[in-house]
Amino acid sequence: VKIVVINPNTTESMTQAIGVTATAVASAGTTIIATQPVDGPVSIEGFYDEAFAVPGVLEEIRRCERWDTPPDAYVIACFDDTGLDAARCVTAAPVIGIGEAGCHLASLLAPRFAIVTTLARAIVALGHNVKKYGFGERCVRIRAAEVPVLALEEPGSDARQMIDREIAAALRDDGAEAIVLGCAGMTALTRSLSEAHGVPVIDGVAAAVKLAESLVGLGLRTSKINSYAAPLSKTYKGRYAGIVAP
Amino acid sequence: VKIVVINPNTTESMTQAIGVTATAVASAGTTIIATQPVDGPVSIEGFYDEAFAVPGVLEEIRRCERWDTPPDAYVIACFDDTGLDAARCVTAAPVIGIGEAGCHLASLLAPRFAIVTTLARAIVALGHNVKKYGFGERCVRIRAAEVPVLALEEPGSDARQMIDREIAAALRDDGAEAIVLGCAGMTALTRSLSEAHGVPVIDGVAAAVKLAESLVGLGLRTSKINSYAAPLSKTYKGRYAGIVAP
Amino acid sequence: VKIVVINPNTTESMTQAIGVTATAVASAGTTIIATQPVDGPVSIEGFYDEAFAVPGVLEEIRRCERWDTPPDAYVIACFDDTGLDAARCVTAAPVIGIGEAGCHLASLLAPRFAIVTTLARAIVALGHNVKKYGFGERCVRIRAAEVPVLALEEPGSDARQMIDREIAAALRDDGAEAIVLGCAGMTALTRSLSEAHGVPVIDGVAAAVKLAESLVGLGLRTSKINSYAAPLSKTYKGRYAGIVAP
Amino acid sequence: VKIVVINPNTTESMTQAIGVTATAVASAGTTIIATQPVDGPVSIEGFYDEAFAVPGVLEEIRRCERWDTPPDAYVIACFDDTGLDAARCVTAAPVIGIGEAGCHLASLLAPRFAIVTTLARAIVALGHNVKKYGFGERCVRIRAAEVPVLALEEPGSDARQMIDREIAAALRDDGAEAIVLGCAGMTALTRSLSEAHGVPVIDGVAAAVKLAESLVGLGLRTSKINSYAAPLSKTYKGRYAGIVAP
Amino acid sequence: VKIVVINPNTTESMTQAIGVTATAVASAGTTIIATQPVDGPVSIEGFYDEAFAVPGVLEEIRRCERWDTPPDAYVIACFDDTGLDAARCVTAAPVIGIGEAGCHLASLLAPRFAIVTTLARAIVALGHNVKKYGFGERCVRIRAAEVPVLALEEPGSDARQMIDREIAAALRDDGAEAIVLGCAGMTALTRSLSEAHGVPVIDGVAAAVKLAESLVGLGLRTSKINSYAAPLSKTYKGRYAGIVAP
Amino acid sequence: VKIVVINPNTTESMTQAIGVTATAVASAGTTIIATQPVDGPVSIEGFYDEAFAVPGVLEEIRRCERWDTPPDAYVIACFDDTGLDAARCVTAAPVIGIGEAGCHLASLLAPRFAIVTTLARAIVALGHNVKKYGFGERCVRIRAAEVPVLALEEPGSDARQMIDREIAAALRDDGAEAIVLGCAGMTALTRSLSEAHGVPVIDGVAAAVKLAESLVGLGLRTSKINSYAAPLSKTYKGRYAGIVAP
Repeated sequence: VKIVVINPNTTESMTQAIGVTATAVASAGTTIIATQPVDGPVSIEGFYDEAFAVPGVLEEIRRCERWDTPPDAYVIACFDDTGLDAARCVTAAPVIGIGEAGCHLASLLAPRFAIVTTLARAIVALGHNVKKYGFGERCVRIRAAEVPVLALEEPGSDARQMIDREIAAALRDDGAEAIVLGCAGMTALTRSLSEAHGVPVIDGVAAAVKLAESLVGLGLRTSKINSYAAPLSKTYKGRYAGIVAP
Repeated sequence: VKIVVINPNTTESMTQAIGVTATAVASAGTTIIATQPVDGPVSIEGFYDEAFAVPGVLEEIRRCERWDTPPDAYVIACFDDTGLDAARCVTAAPVIGIGEAGCHLASLLAPRFAIVTTLARAIVALGHNVKKYGFGERCVRIRAAEVPVLALEEPGSDARQMIDREIAAALRDDGAEAIVLGCAGMTALTRSLSEAHGVPVIDGVAAAVKLAESLVGLGLRTSKINSYAAPLSKTYKGRYAGIVAP
Repeated sequence: VKIVVINPNTTESMTQAIGVTATAVASAGTTIIATQPVDGPVSIEGFYDEAFAVPGVLEEIRRCERWDTPPDAYVIACFDDTGLDAARCVTAAPVIGIGEAGCHLASLLAPRFAIVTTLARAIVALGHNVKKYGFGERCVRIRAAEVPVLALEEPGSDARQMIDREIAAALRDDGAEAIVLGCAGMTALTRSLSEAHGVPVIDGVAAAVKLAESLVGLGLRTSKINSYAAPLSKTYKGRYAGIVAP
Repeated sequence: VKIVVINPNTTESMTQAIGVTATAVASAGTTIIATQPVDGPVSIEGFYDEAFAVPGVLEEIRRCERWDTPPDAYVIACFDDTGLDAARCVTAAPVIGIGEAGCHLASLLAPRFAIVTTLARAIVALGHNVKKYGFGERCVRIRAAEVPVLALEEPGSDARQMIDREIAAALRDDGAEAIVLGCAGMTALTRSLSEAHGVPVIDGVAAAVKLAESLVGLGLRTSKINSYAAPLSKTYKGRYAGIVAP
Repeated sequence: VKIVVINPNTTESMTQAIGVTATAVASAGTTIIATQPVDGPVSIEGFYDEAFAVPGVLEEIRRCERWDTPPDAYVIACFDDTGLDAARCVTAAPVIGIGEAGCHLASLLAPRFAIVTTLARAIVALGHNVKKYGFGERCVRIRAAEVPVLALEEPGSDARQMIDREIAAALRDDGAEAIVLGCAGMTALTRSLSEAHGVPVIDGVAAAVKLAESLVGLGLRTSKINSYAAPLSKTYKGRYAGIVAP
Repeated sequence: VKIVVINPNTTESMTQAIGVTATAVASAGTTIIATQPVDGPVSIEGFYDEAFAVPGVLEEIRRCERWDTPPDAYVIACFDDTGLDAARCVTAAPVIGIGEAGCHLASLLAPRFAIVTTLARAIVALGHNVKKYGFGERCVRIRAAEVPVLALEEPGSDARQMIDREIAAALRDDGAEAIVLGCAGMTALTRSLSEAHGVPVIDGVAAAVKLAESLVGLGLRTSKINSYAAPLSKTYKGRYAGIVAP
């Protein structure tokens, strides 16, 4: 089983960290290939950054699809599930977003969960996704720790304390019984946060790898009959002149 | 990884068939143990049968929990997810219902799916579950093929044609782009139905085994802080005099 | 009019107290028969206890159905409406749960109400019911006083103060304009709480008796065409070997 | 128990018919007084007619409130629950609309019901009410038989056949398992329709009388702390110069 | 373009103030005619007042429809959108309520907004409207400043501070990113509140005038095929004897 | 008032047609500037095309923002509201999508409307938007005429008949009372379709121009306090190296 994990931003250290996490949870027969787009922002914090990250994600998938042995599945490793619907049009291999993955597994472990993400400006965008996936009631609240994405990698930052505070509030005030970490950069804290708070804490990257393995193991592939059908053939102009329908 | 798959009804041939399916999709390191309650109905068709199946399911879990090496996870293999919430109170090991499992995987492959189940009398009960899980909008319709559960095992029945007809209607009229099979007894038809209709067809038993493996692989266990906390210690009378809180 | 009020737990003193309440509010021509299952837990606090209470409730109804003059209606007197859907399959006589009854009457008296129940572990289960009945928006919050069910009967307990505190909070913070008491054991406090807080306080037992009388008075019986049709005839094994479809 | 049943339109023959129905289902100790406004349209078919019916309903209630022994409860006997929220501001006695009453009782007898009303132009208005009450999912469809209100009283009309056709369609196509009759003028057909179609058919007038008796029997009155508080004292001009806050 | 702005209450000074606001925002070619019913309460604070204001609003529209050149559009200038649905039956010219207008424009400027209105007793009624229009999720909360409508015109009142407090709370606690002023009487404060709080503050009167101009400019008129069809011809009795279907 | 109308695809003839429509409905003092991205697909039919259209739309806005006199408002003239949320981060001037605009105006003219769009593959994407905007219940159905976007410009095509058929079905079967045209390419048919079917037919381009004028006329601008705050300053790599936060 070959799974390509795409970090939609262009920060290599984060791609590597995500690859380490994904590899650590992968099953014996699974190969993880962590990659990132050539083009796009160094982090995704809001609607604007996301827009410039999506084309690179799609091109990365198209590049992999041309391999002699294309991947069995893809993981999109940003919590806003950057370009997920479009990615499913490009390949029949399963594509899993870490945002949806975290929510799916959380809802198997607790009746109500909360998401703790980085910045408040992301809450509305994540809320759109959560409702679209069907978790609008099971996810009782999306909280922001107000930690910038790249600060999660800085040794001296107080990111951990700020995340702790939001988790505690979610359990005490919101009725959450499990926590989904709302950023790929929080991956390394998962186990420690779970032990500290006494509830399941779900990392989307790990969750997505297992869901991808699950679908591949069952031979299931994306439905192509309508919404996720291959793009229609047409001309792309300017900067995207080389783009063709897969 | 040791997964106990519980067929909540007391028909041994169905337990065996479920065990075969589960074993076929299990990963290399996974042991599947298919079992069934001592007490209860030979099939579950509606609210009444379900009520008499739940205690047996719970006792089966409690029996397994006393093993020297208890299971790593449980699967409840009836599409109404018989006793799922109560089962999660009895053990911290993940418990997955095949109904929820089918819906979770379907929603990773298509924006809208339909469920095709056996009898119309089950539609309302399944609809309650689907809404509770959050799939009230993604599941566009629950259709009944009007095939009794045990007829699915009979060689000469026209069960296949009746299921075909409902799948075709779901794709044509309801906007479904994937199908979830709404009964553990339909497992053997999965691949053939998918090929015939050109869309992903998801079997809940297979889906639940992979989700159970996923959670075990990540070291995730059921949240015990509130709704799924261990039952309070108390006296049970009459027929259940032997029951104690786990 | 003969109404059987079933206390789904096996604590006789509670059955008697429920019978007193039910009799006190019954109309002139109504006979109340308070009863309880032979088998099951002494109180119902969470999903696990509920599962072991349901078969006894159903058997109690089947026992009454064999009377020369069967009851005109049934009331299930636990706020989680233990086994309500299954009970409606066993008899065509109306079956009313005290949880639904309280919500129905509250919504005739105020645009928004809150439920005050015993333990936090019950909130999610009650929330499932409330949504299923359609009161997901009219019931603005379910609050737990953190009083164990049986403590409600103890003279020296501070149950009353803890319930007072939650009612006050519901009126002040949640926008509730009426209160539904979320446990049959709170029945005796109804009038006093209403006077203290100046809003309607609804006891589910009383509400259910009146709704049962209403349906009987109109000659209305449970619809049997589909979801609540009589169970299909089939074999029950083990402990339930004697069970037959009604 | 004294219940005033207000027919919100000004057609006396309909008021009398409603009074007959209400009296027929009332309990032994209940006195029914059927009345109607002095001012307003002869039937209510759509938003415009309703607007001109409401003031008369409110004044009728205010008139009764000045009796030496005011009524114990009121019923508003038009299926659009004409002026219901405003009426609850005028008196602390319970006020029940026949539309809400029919829906409440139907949802105690079947998981899903349909409403069959007179004219298509009423569907949207009734839909608003149904959602407001919380029955947006339990009421699977509102169907119009396209029978004008007053034609229901005409001997030779084909109203019965047209209502039959819609009930049959609701049971066959919509998943309804019970029927609520969506007009006070259909009252006389209730029993016959139920027998013909084999499902509960609920008449709102009868339902409302029993719910009113229920609330009175329990000593429950409308919450007055906020939304339904007595109107603030103020000046009314022109045609309403005589109006004062109750 | 001729737009009639109807103040549904009978306080002339408020009609004049509304007219000033409407005229100030009207486009060059637009004539604003501010008017009010002859009959009805001096302010609308709750369900009861609203009921007595609606007939006057409808008669005012019918009066204007008989002009040689009837208006191109109507605005109903009370935040509860007094009689809006009925008004749309009386004329094919667009009719805009200031409540809906404020919500529509707010949702073009921010993903989530709050309404700040006068009295808590209005919250439930406004909430019904907000849900009916579709803004149940985008409007995160309706807050009451507890300022009586007519106090908004008094020079020395502390209305401004109380409104400030609620806006600040909505931005801080509710996740609102824009504010809709929930009363026509707050119009004069719009710009100042927006500057003070740094977010868009929308006045419904201004919003409704622009939406009315928009529809007129596009030649769009109310759909008359069903819900808003012209009232059926029928007799009105008593005080409304003169009323005829338009 | 200067409004830039951006056609998100790169087909110049469509840009010109959109410009003609927009200019035709613009008020006297409004200047319309129709434009299109340099980069991107020649039409947008599904998730994939949309992803490659968004960066060009955002850059077009950024280019206009650097004008000496930047635009007062923007319209995004594709019915999927390409990049709308991101666009609102780039400028404080109002940005209106033609999809949302059509829905907003339709809901002022009819209680329920339907959308008729080009291809079935767009239905799910449009459905996401409709729910996000709050019109999930008011929009009763999204229908596809199965006409490719660019075929709408071909003289001999049967596009008109196919659109007619879907409109007729929406009015007859879905309860729609108004129609929103779901593609900027259908603009020219608006008036003719409205006359043929006797209901309001709303063109999103025209609607958006009027809503943009409305917001500009009121001095209202996008809320910048959170979700739509200006993008954070950061590095963009590769193809987007030149991108800077506005």
